[in-house]
Amino acid sequence: MRVDYALLTDLYQITMAQGYWDAGKGREEACFSMYFRDYPFKGGFAVACGMAQLAEMVESYRFADDDVAYLAGLSAPGGGPLFSEDFLAYLADFRLTCDIDAVREGTVVFPHEPLVRVTGPIMECQLLETALLNCVNFQTLIATKAARVCLAAGDAPVAEFGLRRAQGLGGVWASRAAVVGGCASTSDVLAGKLFDIPVSGTHAHSWVMSFDDELTAFREYARIFPKNCVLLVDSYDVEQGIRNAITVGLEMRERGERLAGIRIDSGDLSWLARMARRMLDEAGLEDCGIVLSNDLDEHTIKSILDEGTPVTSWGVGTKLACAFDQPTLGGVYKLAAVREPGAEEWTNRLKISESAAKLTTPGVLDVRRYYHDDGRIAGDMVFDVTRPVDGREVIVDPVDDLRQKRLAGKRYETLLAPLARGGRAVLAPEDRSAMAARERARAGLATLDETQKRMLNPHTYPVGLEYGLFERRRELVASLRGIV
Amino acid sequence: MRVDYALLTDLYQITMAQGYWDAGKGREEACFSMYFRDYPFKGGFAVACGMAQLAEMVESYRFADDDVAYLAGLSAPGGGPLFSEDFLAYLADFRLTCDIDAVREGTVVFPHEPLVRVTGPIMECQLLETALLNCVNFQTLIATKAARVCLAAGDAPVAEFGLRRAQGLGGVWASRAAVVGGCASTSDVLAGKLFDIPVSGTHAHSWVMSFDDELTAFREYARIFPKNCVLLVDSYDVEQGIRNAITVGLEMRERGERLAGIRIDSGDLSWLARMARRMLDEAGLEDCGIVLSNDLDEHTIKSILDEGTPVTSWGVGTKLACAFDQPTLGGVYKLAAVREPGAEEWTNRLKISESAAKLTTPGVLDVRRYYHDDGRIAGDMVFDVTRPVDGREVIVDPVDDLRQKRLAGKRYETLLAPLARGGRAVLAPEDRSAMAARERARAGLATLDETQKRMLNPHTYPVGLEYGLFERRRELVASLRGIV
Repeated sequence: MRVDYALLTDLYQITMAQGYWDAGKGREEACFSMYFRDYPFKGGFAVACGMAQLAEMVESYRFADDDVAYLAGLSAPGGGPLFSEDFLAYLADFRLTCDIDAVREGTVVFPHEPLVRVTGPIMECQLLETALLNCVNFQTLIATKAARVCLAAGDAPVAEFGLRRAQGLGGVWASRAAVVGGCASTSDVLAGKLFDIPVSGTHAHSWVMSFDDELTAFREYARIFPKNCVLLVDSYDVEQGIRNAITVGLEMRERGERLAGIRIDSGDLSWLARMARRMLDEAGLEDCGIVLSNDLDEHTIKSILDEGTPVTSWGVGTKLACAFDQPTLGGVYKLAAVREPGAEEWTNRLKISESAAKLTTPGVLDVRRYYHDDGRIAGDMVFDVTRPVDGREVIVDPVDDLRQKRLAGKRYETLLAPLARGGRAVLAPEDRSAMAARERARAGLATLDETQKRMLNPHTYPVGLEYGLFERRRELVASLRGIV
Repeated sequence: MRVDYALLTDLYQITMAQGYWDAGKGREEACFSMYFRDYPFKGGFAVACGMAQLAEMVESYRFADDDVAYLAGLSAPGGGPLFSEDFLAYLADFRLTCDIDAVREGTVVFPHEPLVRVTGPIMECQLLETALLNCVNFQTLIATKAARVCLAAGDAPVAEFGLRRAQGLGGVWASRAAVVGGCASTSDVLAGKLFDIPVSGTHAHSWVMSFDDELTAFREYARIFPKNCVLLVDSYDVEQGIRNAITVGLEMRERGERLAGIRIDSGDLSWLARMARRMLDEAGLEDCGIVLSNDLDEHTIKSILDEGTPVTSWGVGTKLACAFDQPTLGGVYKLAAVREPGAEEWTNRLKISESAAKLTTPGVLDVRRYYHDDGRIAGDMVFDVTRPVDGREVIVDPVDDLRQKRLAGKRYETLLAPLARGGRAVLAPEDRSAMAARERARAGLATLDETQKRMLNPHTYPVGLEYGLFERRRELVASLRGIV
């Protein structure tokens, strides 16, 4: 799908770009950090996603002739054209030159640490903001939701099938993000084709309803799809539906085939699944699986499994594809430093706020992830790559500076990796693959303590600012408060 | 944006299509109804949207060569190719032939009435399901949310600017739906270009932060954009920000220009806006507007206005673009009737459920909207176009049959209009225009009683099944319960 990323932006980004240009700041360099402030879903982690689309955006970023013509037709509210001819001519030839660093897709991430860092002419940084946030916010949200759902489901695979209730075309990337977060497959064929992820599906109630009776519908389905036969048993009456499925399952066995499963999509799933298991087992169809679906999320899945219900696999739609209980991540993209063209040194920038949680972090930021000897993660340090790290390797919670932790002596890795250099995407193929990101997420989640993966009231993982960075931020706040 | 609508579907739709084909039902005709069951946002109405994209979908619906190649590569879980070569050859030549009828975009609609009706070969109806629901569910949701926000805002225009927090590319259609629902403009440039809707915007905190001080940033912005100058005053300290804006506003006046407004994006908006109004008025800048933004929705807007706060316009982002408090509509698409190829008569189909609200309505459905003499709407009747309407024109609530209402003698109009005939889109240009849909929504909302537009606990508008249809449905339920 070809997306016109240059126009996938808020008008004010282009207005400001013209402003920077007119103000002689066209070559001034800036560094922006993208991060989120709050754990989604009241959980204890997030799974980063959206970086593959970011790379695609960088690759195709152009103002096409009809884009420029469209912008040329816009008027200022007070009259006259909104954009100058000079600036429009500049846009027509515009090419990205910035550097982008980002965590790899599937990386487990936490609030207040940069997921993406953009460094380059301030105009470029500004032009990229909206599309970058649109992409990373949403996909990280869905990958995180999927990880929660899959953690709840344990060993049983989860198929994502929320496209019909998804937010328009966002659903196509939701399907990909769901797989990155841990889903085994998606029903979304376009996502399957675009992103090389597994697709799966059974049949709908309409299949059953289109025949005069359910047994005939089941027999026809089994005849046509003997290697793929999962029968939906709740079109009319679940108990009778299971009996009809058993009839067909036994007929399939006679022919040397196998009824792969039945699916239940309404009613009390836990009660019905246990009834189905008994009926199937009594009929000798122990190898027939049970698929459950119907408005499931991590909480309903956990509750069904807590009752000891036997479930072979899950179908999760609406509540996953639009992240029903929290449909947006709220990630932000903030100016963190500026410098004159050609200068070596960065000048830190900060936005003050009445709320400590909304204070930005200045500097050219990256993240060190420290590990315990047993492989579990010990703490994340947000640091400024242009300054020395204080030897004590102490982190200070960005919102509550009484929370501090010393990490010296532990091994660590650095999270940001190059995504673009000089305006060209440099993300390796293995860093664009959804299935590789899925494996990275699985491995990353395994480094969390179980208490940090609890669905409600999880143990908070330590993330903080490197001590020197914390002190520089405090001084900058004091200085700005002194000025204003 | 070119979308591959043929693959924008759940895998099981294509699987079932092959099933219908193999079962010799390829030419069997079906009629499906798309409707929703519950009022979104606990409100009293919805605004239909998504029909323009439906028409675009019909026009571009093809399985391209690479789509067919992708499908040919899929395997059944039990081994072997999922789709047969014959069926794939059929898909390669597939063209839609169905009829689609839909309410016009912007029409005020209610639960249990068909928004879209698809009539044609059952395979086609099935293939269209997912994309149709994806499109109409989401856009109707956002248009409805926007209508609520704009009703709360009263005369002050609302600008939508949620793209950065929207669900990926869904955000582009969210921007269009927001305008259909009543927003005056969107920040989303791509939506502006694609859908010919007004775009607007001011500047961000980063503009201010990129300068050494706020006053310089404001002066530069005013110099560059004298006809479009709205200054964001909360980067450091709102009171000082307003003072700086006043300084610039007075300088502009000296030059014969006008400071159009200030924007406040954090803090207690109501308190700050009243302070700003006093300060601006005392400085003689009575013509400087006040724009408020920051996580607004219909409830916060109403609360701010209830305090008598003077607001010139609103910017609404996150909570509108992803419909934060209810991010999906939950509309369904149900088989309602079938007939053999060439047959005149339809056979009604019904899905029974344990819950009365989930029972489907059989028949080839349309809606009559009845009006009081004063122009207010009186009641909506869901009826079967292939059967005579009972002369009493009584409607029966589909969930509670004790609620009935007689509508005979009132004037009415019929809501469904042709969107496609024989697989070709026939929607008129005026029925594809977002701005025309916006006007239709405005006019439609004016036909509701004020009590039906209340934000919480609204008066319920009467919608019911035509009496004969209600009786046929009851008989069909009894007959199906007898069979199973």
